[in-house]
Amino acid sequence: MNYKMISYTLGILLLFEAGFLLIPALAALILSESALLAILWTAAACLGVGVLLLFTRPERKTLHARDGFVIVALSWIVLSFFGCFPFFISRAIPSFIDALFETVSGFTTTGASILADVESMPKSLLLWRSFTHWVGGMGVLVFIMAILPLGGGQNMHIMKAESPGPTVSKLVPRVRNTAFLLYALYFLMTVLEFIFLIIGRMPVFDALCTAFGTAGTGGFGVKNDSLGGYSAYIQIVVAVFMLLFAVNFGSYFALIRKKPREALSTEVRAFFCIVVAAVAVLTVNVYRLFPSVGEALRHVFFSVASLISSTGFSTVDFDVWPQLSRTVIVLLMLIGACAGSTGGGFKVARVVLLVKAFGREVHQAIHPKQVKKITIDGKPVDKSVLDSLFAYTVSFITVYVVSMLLISVDNLDFTTNFTAVVATLNNIGPGLSLVGPTGNYAVFSSFSKGVLIFDMLAGRLELFPILLLFSPVTWRR
Amino acid sequence: MNYKMISYTLGILLLFEAGFLLIPALAALILSESALLAILWTAAACLGVGVLLLFTRPERKTLHARDGFVIVALSWIVLSFFGCFPFFISRAIPSFIDALFETVSGFTTTGASILADVESMPKSLLLWRSFTHWVGGMGVLVFIMAILPLGGGQNMHIMKAESPGPTVSKLVPRVRNTAFLLYALYFLMTVLEFIFLIIGRMPVFDALCTAFGTAGTGGFGVKNDSLGGYSAYIQIVVAVFMLLFAVNFGSYFALIRKKPREALSTEVRAFFCIVVAAVAVLTVNVYRLFPSVGEALRHVFFSVASLISSTGFSTVDFDVWPQLSRTVIVLLMLIGACAGSTGGGFKVARVVLLVKAFGREVHQAIHPKQVKKITIDGKPVDKSVLDSLFAYTVSFITVYVVSMLLISVDNLDFTTNFTAVVATLNNIGPGLSLVGPTGNYAVFSSFSKGVLIFDMLAGRLELFPILLLFSPVTWRR
Repeated sequence: MNYKMISYTLGILLLFEAGFLLIPALAALILSESALLAILWTAAACLGVGVLLLFTRPERKTLHARDGFVIVALSWIVLSFFGCFPFFISRAIPSFIDALFETVSGFTTTGASILADVESMPKSLLLWRSFTHWVGGMGVLVFIMAILPLGGGQNMHIMKAESPGPTVSKLVPRVRNTAFLLYALYFLMTVLEFIFLIIGRMPVFDALCTAFGTAGTGGFGVKNDSLGGYSAYIQIVVAVFMLLFAVNFGSYFALIRKKPREALSTEVRAFFCIVVAAVAVLTVNVYRLFPSVGEALRHVFFSVASLISSTGFSTVDFDVWPQLSRTVIVLLMLIGACAGSTGGGFKVARVVLLVKAFGREVHQAIHPKQVKKITIDGKPVDKSVLDSLFAYTVSFITVYVVSMLLISVDNLDFTTNFTAVVATLNNIGPGLSLVGPTGNYAVFSSFSKGVLIFDMLAGRLELFPILLLFSPVTWRR
Repeated sequence: MNYKMISYTLGILLLFEAGFLLIPALAALILSESALLAILWTAAACLGVGVLLLFTRPERKTLHARDGFVIVALSWIVLSFFGCFPFFISRAIPSFIDALFETVSGFTTTGASILADVESMPKSLLLWRSFTHWVGGMGVLVFIMAILPLGGGQNMHIMKAESPGPTVSKLVPRVRNTAFLLYALYFLMTVLEFIFLIIGRMPVFDALCTAFGTAGTGGFGVKNDSLGGYSAYIQIVVAVFMLLFAVNFGSYFALIRKKPREALSTEVRAFFCIVVAAVAVLTVNVYRLFPSVGEALRHVFFSVASLISSTGFSTVDFDVWPQLSRTVIVLLMLIGACAGSTGGGFKVARVVLLVKAFGREVHQAIHPKQVKKITIDGKPVDKSVLDSLFAYTVSFITVYVVSMLLISVDNLDFTTNFTAVVATLNNIGPGLSLVGPTGNYAVFSSFSKGVLIFDMLAGRLELFPILLLFSPVTWRR
C-alpha cells in the first residue's frame, strides 16, 4: 500500500474542498448571512489539514489497483466529513449525524434529506448543499485529475474506482484528457440548463441550485415541494435535462465525432425504451388522478425521468399512486441510469449484460454442446467483465439485505425500510411511505442514519471501493 | 424433440396419478364422504387419458436435455390439472382457478391456500391435499423412475430437471437406483415422524396429513390454526422433522455409509448456522411477547424451522412480530432449504456458492494477476456450475420483478405482494400482511392467482424447465 501517495492525494483533495467552499462563502457575503463564518472556518480547516498532508509528498507515485480503491473510498469519506461542518457549526443542522447525512447525501448525489423545512435554511448553505451534488456527480477525483496530474500514469485505477458502470472506456488515449473532456461537457450542459431555466423566469438562485442538482442527478431542492411549484415549462426543462445527464457521456462524444450509430449504443436504446414503457404504463395507471391526460403525462414523465436518472426531484407525491405505479417506480429506482453518466443505480448497461448472459444460459441449457459468446454492440464481452458483474450483483443484494436487517431495528414498516435502502444505495433520494416525496429521513434513528450513510457512499462508488476498505485482504501485506 | 416419448411419459404419469387417487378414495369410502364420487371420476379420467397416451409408445427412447425439461414441466402441469378435479367436481372448492391453485400449491409443496376454513372440508379431500405434498416433495418423476425404467439410460436429464439444487449428484452409479434409495429413505422418515406424532397422541388422520405435509415440506394443515392447537411435544417433533427434511438427503447416505465428515458438508453446516443465528436473533427480539422465554424459544424455533425448510406450518402469527423479526423471516424464506432435500427456496448451497464466488472477486479486485479457484468441500467448482448459478440468480430476480408488477394490478400493499411472490416462488406458503399465517390467498384476483400458480411451478422446478417450456428456442428445430 502506497500510504504516502494516499495521504498526499487526500491533501490535494482538501485544498480543492477549501476552494469549493469559497462559492457558498461568496453567496453568504453577498446575502450577508451569518453562515459565512461557519463556511470560512471549515475552509480554513480544509486548507490547514490539506497543507499538512502535502508534506507526505511521496517518492514513488506507483499505484496498484487496491491503492486506487483505498484512495477513492477515503477521499469520499474525508470530503463528506469536512463538508458537513458549515451545516453543523452554523447550527443550521444542529445534530452532527444529520449534518453528515445531508452532506454525504449531497456528494453522493443522493438527495435524501433529513430536513423537513428547507426554505428556512440560509441560502448560502442551500447553495453549498446543491453544489456538493455538482462536485459529486462526475467524480471529485476525476475533477482533480482534469486539472492536475495525480497518480503518475496510473490514474486509470482511480478513474475505474470512481466512475460508474461495469467497464470504463477512456474516451481519448490519455486518462487526464478524458477527465478534462468529461468535465468540459458536464460544465457546458450545466450552463445550458441554467440558461433554459433563466429563460423560463426561474429566480437566479433557484436556477443555479436546480442546475447543480440536475447535472449531478442529485435532487436537493430549494423549495419544500421540490419542483412542484414551478411552471410546466421549467418542469419539462428539468425533466429533459435529468434524462440527458443520465445518458452515457460517451454517447455525446460519439455525436461530437459524428458517429451517430456509436452514440445510439445498446445501453442508450434500452434506457430510452425503459423510459417510454414506464411513461406509458404509469400514464394509463394514474391519468384519472389528474385534471387532464396532458397534466398526468407531464407529471409521469417528470417522475420517471427523476427516478431512473436517480435524481429525486418531484412535482407530485407519487407515493399516493396505485400499487402498480409504485411497483414500477421502485423498479426504475433499482435499474438506474446509464453507465458513464452522473446517475446512480444498478445501471442499464448491467441490466443489458445480465439479460444477454441469461439468454446465453437458456441457449446453453438446450444445446449443451454449442458455445455461444456474448457480444454487445458487436464487441465480444470479456469473461472478467461478466465475473465482476456477478460479484457486483451479489454484493449489491448482500448490502440490501444487511441494510434492511439493520434498519429494521427501528421498527418502521417494510415499504419505508425497503425503499429507504433502495433510494440511498441507488443514490436517488426519496423512496415511498415514510420516506416518500412528502416525508424525510429524520424518521430514522442515528444508527440507521449511519447505515444509510454507508449505503449512499457504497452506492455512489459502486460498492467495491467501500467494501474493500473494510476488507482485511486489502490491508494484508 | 422426442414427442412420442413425452406423451408416453405423460401417459405413465396419469396411470400413477389414478393410483394415487385411490388413497383419498379409500378414506372417503371409510368415512362415507360424498367426495368419493368426485375422486373416482377423476381417477377414471386419469386412467382413460393415461391409457390413450400409452398408445404413442416410442421407437427410440433417446432424450436430449430439452426433452428432459419439457417432460418435467409438462408432467407437473398435467399432474396438477388432473389433481384439482376432486376439489372442483365435489364443489368443495367451487371455483376452478381456486381448485387449481390449491392443487398446484399441494404438488409444488408450497402450502399456500385459498381456503379460509379448512376444517369444513371433507377429510378425504384434506388427505388428498396433504398427500400431494408427499408426492411432490421428492419429485413425482423420480418416484416413477424408482419403480419403472423411464428414459432408457437418459434418466439423468429428467432427474436433473426435477431435483432441486445447483448440481445433481447421483448417490449410486445408476440413476434408477438413486431414485429408489431416495424414496426409500423418504418413506422411512415419513413413517418415523408419523410414529412420533402418534406417540404424542395426535389423532391418526391429523398425524398422517401432518407427516405428509412435513415430509414434502409442504405445509397444508388440517386445522384452521395450523399447528397452534397441538401440544408442545407435537410442535417440537414437527419442527425437528421439518429441519430433517430440509437437509440434503446425500448427507443421510453419507451417514449410512459411516462418513460423518461427508455428511457435515459446508452446505449442511451453513444451514444449521443460519438456523441457530435466526433463532437467537428472533428470540431476543420477541421474548417479551410470550409468557416465558421457553415458550418464546419454542415458537421461534418452530417458525424458523418452518420457514427455512419452506414448509409453512405455523404455531403463532409471526406477522405481528416486530419489524426486525419480520425481516429475518423474509430472509429465511428467500434462502430456503438445502439442495437435494424436499425443501424449496434459493437453496443454501447456492448461497454458499455465491459467497465463495464473491470472495474470489474481492481477492481478484485487489490482486488482479492472481487466479483463484473456488472449491467447496475440497472439490473445485466447475465453471459451468457458476455460470448456471448466475443465470439462475438472474432469472429468479426477473421472475420476482415481473410477478410483483403483474399482481400489483390488484392494488394490494407492498408487503402482501412481495411476500406472496416470495412465499409462492420459494414454495413456502404463508407470507406476511394479508397473506400472513392468519390470512389466505383468496384476496387475490383470478389473474394474480394465475401468476402465483406459475410462480409455484417455476419455483418447485427451479425455474428452468418452466421458463424453457415458454421459450421459442426450445421448440425450434
